[in-house]
Amino acid sequence: MTTRPRILTGDTPTGRLHLGHYVGSLENRIRLQRDHDCYILIANVHAFTTRAQQPEDVRRDTIEIVRDQLAAGVDPSLATFVVQSEIPAIAELTFLLAMLIPFSRVMRNPTLKAEITSKQLGDHYSFGFPLYAVGQCADILAFRADLVPVGEDQAAHVEMTREVARRFAQVYGAEVFPVPEPLFGRVARLPGIDGVEKMSKSRGNAIYLSDSTDEIRRKMARLYTGRQSADEPGDPDNVLFQYARAFLPDPARVEELAAGYARGGMGDAPIKREVADAIDALVAPMRERRARFTDDAVLDLLREHARRANAVAGETLARVKDAMHLTFA
Amino acid sequence: MTTRPRILTGDTPTGRLHLGHYVGSLENRIRLQRDHDCYILIANVHAFTTRAQQPEDVRRDTIEIVRDQLAAGVDPSLATFVVQSEIPAIAELTFLLAMLIPFSRVMRNPTLKAEITSKQLGDHYSFGFPLYAVGQCADILAFRADLVPVGEDQAAHVEMTREVARRFAQVYGAEVFPVPEPLFGRVARLPGIDGVEKMSKSRGNAIYLSDSTDEIRRKMARLYTGRQSADEPGDPDNVLFQYARAFLPDPARVEELAAGYARGGMGDAPIKREVADAIDALVAPMRERRARFTDDAVLDLLREHARRANAVAGETLARVKDAMHLTFA
Repeated sequence: MTTRPRILTGDTPTGRLHLGHYVGSLENRIRLQRDHDCYILIANVHAFTTRAQQPEDVRRDTIEIVRDQLAAGVDPSLATFVVQSEIPAIAELTFLLAMLIPFSRVMRNPTLKAEITSKQLGDHYSFGFPLYAVGQCADILAFRADLVPVGEDQAAHVEMTREVARRFAQVYGAEVFPVPEPLFGRVARLPGIDGVEKMSKSRGNAIYLSDSTDEIRRKMARLYTGRQSADEPGDPDNVLFQYARAFLPDPARVEELAAGYARGGMGDAPIKREVADAIDALVAPMRERRARFTDDAVLDLLREHARRANAVAGETLARVKDAMHLTFA
Repeated sequence: MTTRPRILTGDTPTGRLHLGHYVGSLENRIRLQRDHDCYILIANVHAFTTRAQQPEDVRRDTIEIVRDQLAAGVDPSLATFVVQSEIPAIAELTFLLAMLIPFSRVMRNPTLKAEITSKQLGDHYSFGFPLYAVGQCADILAFRADLVPVGEDQAAHVEMTREVARRFAQVYGAEVFPVPEPLFGRVARLPGIDGVEKMSKSRGNAIYLSDSTDEIRRKMARLYTGRQSADEPGDPDNVLFQYARAFLPDPARVEELAAGYARGGMGDAPIKREVADAIDALVAPMRERRARFTDDAVLDLLREHARRANAVAGETLARVKDAMHLTFA
C-alpha cells in the first residue's frame, strides 16, 4: 500500500460536480486510484472564504461532493476522502508553514489574484482568503503527496507548495516532504455552455454529473457556437468541437465530423445531439450509483476515512514538529 | 473553579523575562491567579515569525520563560501554562476565525504595523507575521477568556479579538465567546536603561528577573537620565523616577526623593542605588525559586498543563464547529 506513489487532490465544495470537474481532474482520480495511494480533499474550511455566512450550505455541499465522486467511480476502498475540518494537522501545518512563506509571495500568487478579480471581491475579503493559499500547501504536504492532479488554474498553488517543501528541507534539514508534481487533466479548460467562460456553477453555464438525460440534451442544445447558418463553413475548433473531443469516445468519428463541419453544410444540431448522447452515456451509470449513497452512508464513510487520513497527516505533523524542535509532549 | 473569571495572558518566548514584563503584566498574573482561572500562553509558534531559522533557541526560550514565571511566583497549581504548539485547537480556531476578519482590518492593525517598523522588516516578512495577529484572537478566544492582561502595545490585538467575538455571535447565533476586556499593567511602558526606548531584549537595555545583584547594580548605575550635574534641578518625571515609582515600595519615600531632586543638589547615584536595592529585593526570592525548577521539572509540568489546556480549548473548538455546522464526526 504505502509504496504506491501518493496523490492529493480535491475541490472546494461549492456545489454539485460538473463536466469541467470531470475532465479537469475527476477522471484522473478514477484512473489513478488503483495504482496510487489517493487522498481526495474536500476543502470545506476554504469554502468559508466566500461562504462564511452559509455554513449549512457548505455542509450539504461537502456531503454532496463526496456522493458525486462515489457516483462517478471513486472507490472508497482504494481512495480516501479527507474532509478538511476533520484533520487538525492541516490547520497546525498551515500555521507552521506560514512562517516559511514570504507574505509578498502569497499576495503575488496569480491564482489568488485571478479569484479576487473573478469573484469581484475588491478589497472586501477575509484574511482567510489569502490564508487559504497557504492552507493549500498544507493540504498537499500533510499527505506528503508525490502527485497533485489539478486544474491549470491551480498550477500556481502547486508551484508555491513545491517552494515550501524545498524551503522546509533547507531550513530544518529534514526530508519530510516530497516536492510534489502537478498533473493536469486531459482537458485544461472546458468552456461552459455559454461558449465563453470556463464552466462553473457561479456562471450558470454548467452541465452537472447529476443532470438528467433531458437536462443534458436541453443544455447541449443551448450551447452557443455563434454560428449563423448551417451552410457556412464551421470552425472545427469551436466550443462544440471542444465538447466533441472531450466526450465522443471515438477520435476518428470526431475528425470525420470536424471535416464535414469545416466544409459547411453540416448543422450544429445533430452534432450537439451526438455529444449529448455521449455525455449521457458517461453519466448514466453515475445516476445509478448515486442513489446507493445515502447521507448516512456518506457520513459513515467519512468517519472511517477521517481516521485513515488523520493517521497519515498526524505522522507528517509529528515529523514536522520534531524537525522544528516543537517537542514538549 | 470554573466560576472564577477566566484570564488569558502570555508572551512570545524571545528570551528571559525582564522588569518591563514584570510591571507590564507578570505581577498582574501573580496577583490575579488566586481568584481567577488563569491561562498563561507561551506563544512559541508566533516566535517563528521572526525566528523560523532558530528553532532550538525558541524551544530553550519556551522552557526558560516558564521557569522565569514560576520563579516570579506563578503557582502551577493555580495557573495553567499553555505552550501554543501543544494546543491543536488554537491552530484550527485561527483558520476558522480568519474567515470572519477582513484582510484589510488585519493589515491596518497598528500593533502589527509598529512591529514591522520597529523590527525593520520592510517587505521581508513571512505570511505568518500578519497571521499571528489572527492567531492572537484565537489564543484568547480558545480559552473563552473574560480578561486579558496585556501591555498597552497589545491593546489593538484585544480590540480585534473583541470584534471577532461579537462577529462570531452575530454570524452563527451562538454565544461561545465572552467579549474579553483588556487589563493593563501598573506601568504602561517601562523604558530601558538607555532611558529612551521601551525595555526590550533586542535593544540590549533590559534588567532581567534573573540578573544577579551585581548586574542589577551595574545596569542601574548606567541608567541614562541625561542630567549633566547633581547641582542642577532634576526632572522628577525622568526615567530614573519612572523606575523609582515602579520599584520603590514606599510612595512617600518616592515623593520625598522627587522633591529633593527637583530642588537640585541631589545626585542621581544614591537614588540609583536605592532603586537597585529595591529591584534586588524584588528578584532575590525569584533567584532562589528558579533553582528548584529543572528542565525536566518544567517539561513534566508542561505536559500536565497541556492536558488541562487542551480540555478547555478542545471544548471551545467543539462548540465553534457545532455553530459552524462543521459536524462530521
